[in-house]
Amino acid sequence: MNKEIGPIEDLIKKLNRLPGIGSKTAQRLAYHIIEMEDVEVADLANSIIRAKKDTKQCSICMNYADSDPCEICSNNSRDDSIICVVESPKDVEAMERSLSFRGKYHVLHGVISPLKGKTAEDVTINQLLKRIENGNVKEVIVATNPTVDGDTTARYIQNILEKYDDLIISRIGYGLPVGGDLEYYDEITISTAIQNRRKLD
Amino acid sequence: MNKEIGPIEDLIKKLNRLPGIGSKTAQRLAYHIIEMEDVEVADLANSIIRAKKDTKQCSICMNYADSDPCEICSNNSRDDSIICVVESPKDVEAMERSLSFRGKYHVLHGVISPLKGKTAEDVTINQLLKRIENGNVKEVIVATNPTVDGDTTARYIQNILEKYDDLIISRIGYGLPVGGDLEYYDEITISTAIQNRRKLD
Repeated sequence: MNKEIGPIEDLIKKLNRLPGIGSKTAQRLAYHIIEMEDVEVADLANSIIRAKKDTKQCSICMNYADSDPCEICSNNSRDDSIICVVESPKDVEAMERSLSFRGKYHVLHGVISPLKGKTAEDVTINQLLKRIENGNVKEVIVATNPTVDGDTTARYIQNILEKYDDLIISRIGYGLPVGGDLEYYDEITISTAIQNRRKLD
Repeated sequence: MNKEIGPIEDLIKKLNRLPGIGSKTAQRLAYHIIEMEDVEVADLANSIIRAKKDTKQCSICMNYADSDPCEICSNNSRDDSIICVVESPKDVEAMERSLSFRGKYHVLHGVISPLKGKTAEDVTINQLLKRIENGNVKEVIVATNPTVDGDTTARYIQNILEKYDDLIISRIGYGLPVGGDLEYYDEITISTAIQNRRKLD
């Protein structure tokens, strides 16, 4: 019997394609959606459409945003002489939550990864170069993650920016997270934390 | 600043309300959706609307289905003298996957739970009673989960069905570990549990 796929089965299949949503979770979500109120379901579907349709990419920092330029790039009270380079929009959110940075951002949308065949062309490094050529940037903080690919990307950015004599290139500090417990961290984290020690005065 | 909520933030909030979707997962999903193709996003939103709109509740077994009566209830090759009572639509799917049961189902949509204030009125026990009064049912297999609430519900069903002299009331066999949940077990475990069902007396 070559029967058409039913609406529940269809929704389970679609949800199952999303990252981190296994078949059990997809099933649970689908049945939950069926039991939601009509208006809530319409609202959810509408939010999905709207997020895709109304989200723009900021032409300066390349982050996703509600407007172009984004709120951060168009905020004159933020220091545009210092750019923090991050891998993803989620990293911008994390940085903003920390309230510790008042400069501008640049979102790479990925990392250089020789193993995954990702080159500098696959991230927004060219756009970063243009910003530095056009603007009055004094420092670039590379805040890619402390992974092999994140470090490779940081090194690459350092190399192509070296030619700008007055530009400071820094890497975000790595070590133990505040509140962390030494015994739970791996050797490399601890070793990095030891190397990044600073004199107390 | 009383600023309007942006489309990304809005979607994250909506996804975060779904069961088992924490704020990190909601964020990851929202950014994934933004990076999906337009047509895929429309497709996902449409599947959500359609699942809610086109899913019916079978007026016989109370399961969610594409039609009323559902495919199983309207299948004449299945034995309608034996009804398997389960907690949820997911349990019907698990039973069907095991290929070990050729009767009909009854979906309770929950369990009796004194602690959670759920009584017999909150599940579809009245509809089950009507089926037994009207039909030629010879056996009811109670396949609620082997949990405190599942057992309470089984005992309750046994009590109200006792008055039907010729009706056999059985409980699904304890091939399932106590505290387990039917939907997570494999075909052989479920099939064994069906074979090991025992008459409640």
